[in-house]
Amino acid sequence: MVESWSFLDTAESNFRPLVVIELAKGTKEETIEWFTKRIVDKKVNGGAQLLIKPLVTENGVENIYLVGASHLRLLLGAETVGLVKECSDNSMRTFTYSSRKTFKHFADDNHDFLTMAECQYIIKHELENLRAKDEKMIPGYPQAKLYPGKSIVRRLLTSGILVQIFPLHDREELKKLCHSWYGRVKVGYQPLDDIRCYFGETIALYFGFLEYFTFALIPMAVIGIPYYMFAWEDYDKYVMFATFNLLWSTVILEVWKRICAILTYRWGTLLMKRQFEEPRPGFHGVLGINPVTGREEPVYSSFKRQLRIYLVSLPFVCLCLYFSLYVMMIYFDLEQWALDYHKENESNFSSLMLYVPSIIYAVVIEIMNRIYRYAAEFLTSWENHRLESSYQNHLILKVLVFNFLNCFASLFYIAFVLFDMKLLRQSLATLLITSQILNQFAESLLPYWLQKRYNRRMKKRMCSTKTDADLSLAEQITMEKEMGTYLGTFDDYLELFLQFGYVSLFSCVYPLAAVFAVLNNITEIYSDALKMCRVYKRPFAEPTANIGVWQLAFETMSVISVVTNCILIGMSPEVDALFPDSKMDLVLTVALVEHLLLAIKFIMAFVIPDKPRDIQMKLAKLEFESLEALKQQVRAFQMQL
Amino acid sequence: MVESWSFLDTAESNFRPLVVIELAKGTKEETIEWFTKRIVDKKVNGGAQLLIKPLVTENGVENIYLVGASHLRLLLGAETVGLVKECSDNSMRTFTYSSRKTFKHFADDNHDFLTMAECQYIIKHELENLRAKDEKMIPGYPQAKLYPGKSIVRRLLTSGILVQIFPLHDREELKKLCHSWYGRVKVGYQPLDDIRCYFGETIALYFGFLEYFTFALIPMAVIGIPYYMFAWEDYDKYVMFATFNLLWSTVILEVWKRICAILTYRWGTLLMKRQFEEPRPGFHGVLGINPVTGREEPVYSSFKRQLRIYLVSLPFVCLCLYFSLYVMMIYFDLEQWALDYHKENESNFSSLMLYVPSIIYAVVIEIMNRIYRYAAEFLTSWENHRLESSYQNHLILKVLVFNFLNCFASLFYIAFVLFDMKLLRQSLATLLITSQILNQFAESLLPYWLQKRYNRRMKKRMCSTKTDADLSLAEQITMEKEMGTYLGTFDDYLELFLQFGYVSLFSCVYPLAAVFAVLNNITEIYSDALKMCRVYKRPFAEPTANIGVWQLAFETMSVISVVTNCILIGMSPEVDALFPDSKMDLVLTVALVEHLLLAIKFIMAFVIPDKPRDIQMKLAKLEFESLEALKQQVRAFQMQL
Repeated sequence: MVESWSFLDTAESNFRPLVVIELAKGTKEETIEWFTKRIVDKKVNGGAQLLIKPLVTENGVENIYLVGASHLRLLLGAETVGLVKECSDNSMRTFTYSSRKTFKHFADDNHDFLTMAECQYIIKHELENLRAKDEKMIPGYPQAKLYPGKSIVRRLLTSGILVQIFPLHDREELKKLCHSWYGRVKVGYQPLDDIRCYFGETIALYFGFLEYFTFALIPMAVIGIPYYMFAWEDYDKYVMFATFNLLWSTVILEVWKRICAILTYRWGTLLMKRQFEEPRPGFHGVLGINPVTGREEPVYSSFKRQLRIYLVSLPFVCLCLYFSLYVMMIYFDLEQWALDYHKENESNFSSLMLYVPSIIYAVVIEIMNRIYRYAAEFLTSWENHRLESSYQNHLILKVLVFNFLNCFASLFYIAFVLFDMKLLRQSLATLLITSQILNQFAESLLPYWLQKRYNRRMKKRMCSTKTDADLSLAEQITMEKEMGTYLGTFDDYLELFLQFGYVSLFSCVYPLAAVFAVLNNITEIYSDALKMCRVYKRPFAEPTANIGVWQLAFETMSVISVVTNCILIGMSPEVDALFPDSKMDLVLTVALVEHLLLAIKFIMAFVIPDKPRDIQMKLAKLEFESLEALKQQVRAFQMQL
Repeated sequence: MVESWSFLDTAESNFRPLVVIELAKGTKEETIEWFTKRIVDKKVNGGAQLLIKPLVTENGVENIYLVGASHLRLLLGAETVGLVKECSDNSMRTFTYSSRKTFKHFADDNHDFLTMAECQYIIKHELENLRAKDEKMIPGYPQAKLYPGKSIVRRLLTSGILVQIFPLHDREELKKLCHSWYGRVKVGYQPLDDIRCYFGETIALYFGFLEYFTFALIPMAVIGIPYYMFAWEDYDKYVMFATFNLLWSTVILEVWKRICAILTYRWGTLLMKRQFEEPRPGFHGVLGINPVTGREEPVYSSFKRQLRIYLVSLPFVCLCLYFSLYVMMIYFDLEQWALDYHKENESNFSSLMLYVPSIIYAVVIEIMNRIYRYAAEFLTSWENHRLESSYQNHLILKVLVFNFLNCFASLFYIAFVLFDMKLLRQSLATLLITSQILNQFAESLLPYWLQKRYNRRMKKRMCSTKTDADLSLAEQITMEKEMGTYLGTFDDYLELFLQFGYVSLFSCVYPLAAVFAVLNNITEIYSDALKMCRVYKRPFAEPTANIGVWQLAFETMSVISVVTNCILIGMSPEVDALFPDSKMDLVLTVALVEHLLLAIKFIMAFVIPDKPRDIQMKLAKLEFESLEALKQQVRAFQMQL
């Protein structure tokens, strides 16, 4: 066995391609030779000890390489990345090679112990951790500098020699997954565990959240329907609906934490130790000593970064916000004009025209959101954050603030400056529905159609009439390498976040919002699934234990919605009528109710435990065991003395 | 060296008494023999491998034993409890015996490497972890049941055989500490590091917080003085003062987290791993299998506990709250009566009489707080919590809610029901000052006086005229074992918490509150120091990384104070005059300002990092190193293959 994982066994029979590396056309021979040598080289010599094979197509070699690894290498890699797997006694434990026999389904010849997504994640981790030793530059490219400890793959990527690395689809598995996921119309849950096995935890968790959120909206939608059907406009009914909504939104966010803990415990990521974060590929600076690692690497003064953030990014964001408000004012002018037009020449056409400004505005909002998104990405990348997580946090903050204002400013203006509830209802409906249609179209259907057309053309060129499943490996790779790259769950969460805003901020004015949200989310599940399986390259699996900053974003939104709903209820004429003598009493009552609701919210968030009791017990048990093991070690050492 | 720590070296020359064990009078010989045997027995045989010696006084043996340990035993114990010490390169690391040479000031013959408090903590830990093997009961006491794994010391304590365990004072050190702490009148900081060395981290952190809090109040006090002196009653000045107070209180609480991190990093407790929590001594139940540890131990159904909490404790607390409100109403009747009396026969006496109800009420509040405290302790103990931390949380919650209502209900009533600002100011002043005087007296001065009288009597009986420092060990122990036991920092923090309430809740009505708080806290430091050094037995050191639930309590208070201050300002006649036309606008403006302030508070709490940058770097460095070490291990293992 020890012999079997030297890099000699690149033998065809043993080799299962997992990851594709595409080098730029015209890459120098010496570079390729050096790079492949480093990939297959033994760990002792600083290599990754993986298997690599050039892809031979009919047109000859195309600078595409397939990377795989022996079974043993993958198991050792699983230990390196700290994978957590289920043991025979149903507990979750960090996998180590020496304790491999205690794990469920482990057998030396069972090559399915690690899922394909896990294997690909391990290979990606090993490739990214392939580090320069004493090379000063990439052989053949003197301008691509290296220093000891620099990740070779990251330098190859930033200097354009490496075009892309992506994991291969498994056509067989994919077909099965597609079928059980969206292939048939069915009532039931998504196959989250299968999604997780194929796409990894981050994506499975997004779909889990999407599904959970959809189910959670159903009670709101069900309660909302009679309001629309019977045109209930009584004060007490609205108050009941809003109060229910506010408390319900707190409950669903708290319960999600528990469900998330259940899912990620089962997937092992809840227990996975955080790895030390390397600088992101785009990070640059002058060579210096990192005070944390003590290694020589680029450093960039935190003061300069702060300057860039506060002197450039912040003013730019403010300018964008101002511009967005300016566009909003134009929209109100348009709205006024349409109203005047309708009054002058009343006709079917003119009453249709009433909706036009809202629709135009909704489209403009979407366009502005997308343009701003690029600007935000550019700025955040220019701020030169060292860590990916810090980059992501700054990007999310920028995008969230702008999107929030851009989408909701007009609604706030209508509600709290114009006091026009009818217009608010109409705008809300138009904005919500238009943005949902645009999103579904731009996000999934359009790319799907483009991809399909491209596939057809490719197949025609290859003169092949085979179905997808029968394609040769070379053909499959040629197809996949041209597919778009999935850029992460950011946009998907953002869409849900804005939807949550539409549903909760003004829920007492437009109870139907939840109905539309539910309908949208059901199709969203299908179109997102389609997107993942058919439109984009397979993404690398990313272990994650929760939805991160989005939990905070949703919770903030639900706090804001308490305030807006209380004000809206206070402004309704029915409530007004309850306090005929004194406006003061009205306002004071509303303020009191608002504070009470906020207090209840915080107490509820505090009282509901974030993890279910049995998960808590399991975690406590693991902690106890590791402490016991430590104690045993100390004791054993003491006895030696 | 290996020989030197067998239990044979109980030789007088080597023995330094650290901890005193007092057994009940008339404890059976076989019990004593068994217990001491277990203490000195080797680790291999399940003993604690400590040294023990009976105390021989002039009156003969008194069932008092002195426990010590060899130097090597203490070092190994330091590893067991996970002590963190400073290395030669100024970084903080978990102490291990094998890496002992890398630590600062370590030398095999330097017996001061561990402080006396640390040694005592180690011995306490070892004694508490002395567990039953196959004993079914304590020899000689068939009713004191044991089961494998049960802590022997805890069973001895609950069955009354063991009267107490306490650490010895070090008269020499104590004298030095007293001198530098409160022995001379000086301007400057307390010797926190010395306090920590002598009393441990929990107590040092309390004094650190007390000092920090006093300094943080000084700006409020300084700004408050001119308000009193010049009788400023302008609206804008009050608004400025209140706004400053609100933002300031957020800042000080956030900055405290940073200072706390600096202190506990230096003391090593920030890095200390949490130990697995054993059941608290008072916990009882039927013998079963603990699902976490898999050990046989008493279990108590969580459902029964919930029943006790919700069906008994909760109603009882509500009843107490109702009673407290009832007493408050009596106070207002008294107040009215005093006012009437003053109106009828106006004299110096009658104007003094005006203060009497407030003073009586303040005394009654203090008495009720103390009685309720006992009731809360009884109830929480009856709820039968398994862990000390859960017991503490439930106790703190009960006590906080009651104390908050009891102390502040009358002020809320005066402010927001009676709208009587003059009475509010007067009540606030009386309550604050009376409770401070009562507290200082009941907490420190009375016990000090009692203790002093007792000491004098004791010395007289021993016919000794020596000063404290010259007492023989036997005399010292005889004195110390009769001293009161310090019950932890709970009451001290509670006092500060209520004081913070008096200062911040109604700060815009009575700016002088901060001045009184500062004055009180300066004397509080001295009287608390006196209490620690002279009145109570030395407490065992307790490592801690922060002030725990009190941080949350103070933050909640500062949120509530935003609300109260905004309302108070809104109610002031000057603000009223600014909105002559519409009360509505006034209320809306106040509500808007309140929400803005709350938003600023939360953003500030979010933006200010909880740990200073250099501590963050040091922690990141340690994390990096431990991850690297883990990787090295995996790599070494891979290379072996």
